[in-house]
Amino acid sequence: MTAAAPKLRDPSALDAFLAEIDGVPTVLDPVVVRRRSRDFFWYSPVLNAELKDKAADVMVSPRDEAEVIRVAAAAARHRIPITPRGGATGNYGQAVPLAGGILLDMLALDRIAWSKPGIVRVEPGAKMHDIDAALRPTGWELRMHPSTKRTATIGGFVAGGSGGVGSVTYGGLREPGNILAARVVTVEETPRVIELRGDAAQKINRAYGTTGIITMLEMPLAPAWPWVDVILACDTFEAAFAAGKAVARADGVVKKLLTPIDTPIPDYFGPLKPACPAGKAVLLAMIAEPSLEVFRDIVAPFGTITHEEPTDEGAGKVPLYEYAWNHTTLQWLKADRSVTYLQCLFPPDRLEETVFAMRERFAEDLVAHCEFIRFAGSVTCSALPVVRYTTKERLDEMIAVHEANGVLIANPHVVTLEDGSRHKRADADQIGFKAEVDPYGLLNPGKMRTYVPRAG
Amino acid sequence: MTAAAPKLRDPSALDAFLAEIDGVPTVLDPVVVRRRSRDFFWYSPVLNAELKDKAADVMVSPRDEAEVIRVAAAAARHRIPITPRGGATGNYGQAVPLAGGILLDMLALDRIAWSKPGIVRVEPGAKMHDIDAALRPTGWELRMHPSTKRTATIGGFVAGGSGGVGSVTYGGLREPGNILAARVVTVEETPRVIELRGDAAQKINRAYGTTGIITMLEMPLAPAWPWVDVILACDTFEAAFAAGKAVARADGVVKKLLTPIDTPIPDYFGPLKPACPAGKAVLLAMIAEPSLEVFRDIVAPFGTITHEEPTDEGAGKVPLYEYAWNHTTLQWLKADRSVTYLQCLFPPDRLEETVFAMRERFAEDLVAHCEFIRFAGSVTCSALPVVRYTTKERLDEMIAVHEANGVLIANPHVVTLEDGSRHKRADADQIGFKAEVDPYGLLNPGKMRTYVPRAG
Repeated sequence: MTAAAPKLRDPSALDAFLAEIDGVPTVLDPVVVRRRSRDFFWYSPVLNAELKDKAADVMVSPRDEAEVIRVAAAAARHRIPITPRGGATGNYGQAVPLAGGILLDMLALDRIAWSKPGIVRVEPGAKMHDIDAALRPTGWELRMHPSTKRTATIGGFVAGGSGGVGSVTYGGLREPGNILAARVVTVEETPRVIELRGDAAQKINRAYGTTGIITMLEMPLAPAWPWVDVILACDTFEAAFAAGKAVARADGVVKKLLTPIDTPIPDYFGPLKPACPAGKAVLLAMIAEPSLEVFRDIVAPFGTITHEEPTDEGAGKVPLYEYAWNHTTLQWLKADRSVTYLQCLFPPDRLEETVFAMRERFAEDLVAHCEFIRFAGSVTCSALPVVRYTTKERLDEMIAVHEANGVLIANPHVVTLEDGSRHKRADADQIGFKAEVDPYGLLNPGKMRTYVPRAG
Repeated sequence: MTAAAPKLRDPSALDAFLAEIDGVPTVLDPVVVRRRSRDFFWYSPVLNAELKDKAADVMVSPRDEAEVIRVAAAAARHRIPITPRGGATGNYGQAVPLAGGILLDMLALDRIAWSKPGIVRVEPGAKMHDIDAALRPTGWELRMHPSTKRTATIGGFVAGGSGGVGSVTYGGLREPGNILAARVVTVEETPRVIELRGDAAQKINRAYGTTGIITMLEMPLAPAWPWVDVILACDTFEAAFAAGKAVARADGVVKKLLTPIDTPIPDYFGPLKPACPAGKAVLLAMIAEPSLEVFRDIVAPFGTITHEEPTDEGAGKVPLYEYAWNHTTLQWLKADRSVTYLQCLFPPDRLEETVFAMRERFAEDLVAHCEFIRFAGSVTCSALPVVRYTTKERLDEMIAVHEANGVLIANPHVVTLEDGSRHKRADADQIGFKAEVDPYGLLNPGKMRTYVPRAG
C-alpha cells in the first residue's frame, strides 16, 4: 500500500455513507464482498501474496448514472475510497481495493444507448459478448476484445485493458480512434459529469478507474465478418512465427487473431489436443471466411492446417480465442499452478531478433507465446510467454534483461499503473485529469502511485 | 518495337480472321480504331512520341466469353496480335497495340456474376464506378480503385494498374488477397479457359493483358463506409506529409486516401482553389464519417481543415480523389502540357529521409506529390511528383538518382512491363504462364520484352 491510499478516518463514516445512498443496492456480507474484491491477479504469485487478503468494506451496485452520482457524492463527503469493478477479469489487480471502502460494481449499467454503422454508445457494465451479440444482426461488432470476452465488460476492458483479439488489425486501445468518447462522473461532494471526446477519452484508458467513474462509452465498430478459427501445426516455433508474420503483413487478408505458440504449451490445450500434435508449435488464427483461401496459400509453406471451424461463441462452445492472449497461460495454469507469465511488447524494427534472443536466453524457464498486433502503425508482437516461476528475483532479472534488449515489459507482477501499464510513468494527462476529477484521491487508491491528492 | 512483336504475315489473314468471327461486333473505320487504340500515355512526352501513331487494324467487341474464345481461336490460327482494352485509362501505353492487329474491346463483358458479403465475381469490362454503385446497397464496395474510377474497368485496373484510392488501407493489388481469382482464355487454335485462384491470380496482375484474356475476376470487397472528402491546408509540405503519416499510422482511423501535395500544384485545382490557399501545401484525405472526429484531433497540430464534404461521385460532381493519384498530374496538365511525372515507391524504413532528399535534390524541376499506402505490411509512400519536362536524358538522370537512393521507380516513360512495372524484370511466373497461354506471343506483343514465343 502506498502513501496515497487514504484510510477510513472515522468508523462511523461507512454508516453515514450507507444512509445517504439508501435505495442503492449494497452488499455487506464479508464473504461475498471479499470474493467480489478479487480479479485474476493470482496468475502472478507475487500479486497473489500481496493481494489475496484485500477486500472492500461494502459492494455497491448502482443501476444508473444518477445512482453513481449519489454514490460518488456520498463517498466524497465521507472520504471513502471507491474501486470500480466490471467483470474483474484483469490480471493486474486492477479491480482489487487496496484500501477497503466501496467496491463499485458496475454490472447493472449494461444498456446500449444507441448504435449506428461504425459506432456503439454503451454503458460500461455491458459484457462485451452481449454487446457483440446485440450488434451482430446489424452487421457490426466491437473492434477488439480480451480473451475473457464472455465475462469482461466494456468498461473494465477500456479502464483495465490494452488490447486483444482484433488488435492485429486495429492496434490497441491506445491508438487514436479506438475509444471515441467516455462519460465520467467525478468524485466530489457535488459530482460533475464530463464527456471526454476523441483523444481526451484516452484519459480513462488503462487508468484502472483512477480517473473518474465511467458511465458511458462510445466505441468504434468493425464489420462482423464470419470468422473462422484455424490452427496451423508447425515443426518449429520459427515456422509458426514466420507464418503469423506473413499473414500479419498481408493487408489484403482480413484477420482478428494471429498467435504463434511454442511447444509444450499446446500440450495443455485439452479439447484441442487432436489439432495440436505432440512436439509441434502452433499458430492460432481467426480469419474472415472470404480471406480463408488466400490465408491457406500464405501459410502452406510453414505447416499443416489441423483445425478449421467457424468461430462459435455459443453456450458450451469454446472459441479458439479462449486459447490465446492470457487464456494461453490459463490453459497451463489449470493443470499446473507453478507457472506464471510476462507481458512483453517487442520492437517492430528488431522483431525476430528480439523474440528469438529472449527465447534462447531464457530457454530454461520461459516458453514463447506471441500475439501479432499493430502498434503505432507497425506490425509487431505483444507476447505473454509462460514462465516457470521460481523467485521474484528471477522474474525481476528476466524483466531487466528484456528491457535491456529493448523489449517493453508491462509488468504483471505489480499493482501500480506506472509499472504495470505500458507507460513507464502515469501519463501527465492522466495525472492532471485525476486532480480534476478525484481531488481527494479516493478512486482506486494505491494504483496511481505518483499521484498526490490536492485536498485532504 | 521489340523483336518479340510479330507482324501480320499475310495481308489476307485479317480478312480470313474476320470471316471466322462473323457475328462478333467489329469496327474497321481507321479513325475510330486509331482513337480507341490510345490510352493516357500522352502524360509522358517520351511515350507520346513513341506511341502516338500506333493503332490496331480492327477493333473487336465480344459480348461474352464464348465470343472471346472464338476471337482468340481465330487470332491464333491466323497469328494476329491481340491487345485487350478496358477503359484505356492507363498511363503506360498498356492498351496501345504496338504491332497492329486486333484491339479487343472488353467493355461489353460488364456483368456482375454474383456478389456476397466480402466478394464480388464480375466480368472484366465492368466499370469500377458501376460495380460500386451496384454493390453499395449491399453495404460493400471495391477495396481500391484508380482516380479514373468513373471510366476505368475492373479488368483494366487488374491488368494494368497497381493500386490507388484504398491502398492506404489494403496495400496494392500485389498484396495477397487483393485479387481472389481470375478466369482467362488462352490464345491457341483451341483456346482453353483457366481459373486462377489465390496467389495464382497474380499471374495476370499488371501484365498488361499479356498473360491471357481475362473473362472473369473475383475481387475482395470492403465495407462501404460513408466517406468524407477533407482538405487540410498546411504552411509547409513537411507539415502536410507529417499529418498524412500520423493518420496513415493510426490503425484506429478508417481511411481511403491520404495525399500530401506540395505547392504550387494546388494552384491548378480549379474548383477547389477556395480550399487551397495560395502558397499552402495540402493534404487530401478520404475518412470514414465515424472516424472524422478523431481525424480532426490528429491533424489539428499540422494545419487547418478548409474543406469537408461527403464524397459525392454523382453526375456532375467531382470527388476529391479526382485530384489525387495521377489526376493530380492531370490537373496541372490541363493548363500546362510542359509537365510530366514519375512514379516512385519510397522505402518504408527511410521514408522521410528519401522523400525530402529527392525533393531537395530536384527542387528545380520536381514538385512533390505523395500517396500514403501500405506495402508488404508497412506504411510507406507511393509518389507521383510533377516533373517539369526538358529532355529524356534529364528524366533518366532523375530516375537514376532516385534508384541510387533506394527509391523504386515504375518508369512511366517506357512501354515494357519489365521497366514500367514495379518488378524490374517480368516475374518468372508471369513469363512461365505466358508460355502456357500465349505460345505464339500474340497477346499485346512488345510489352513483355523478355518473352520469347515458343512457337512461330
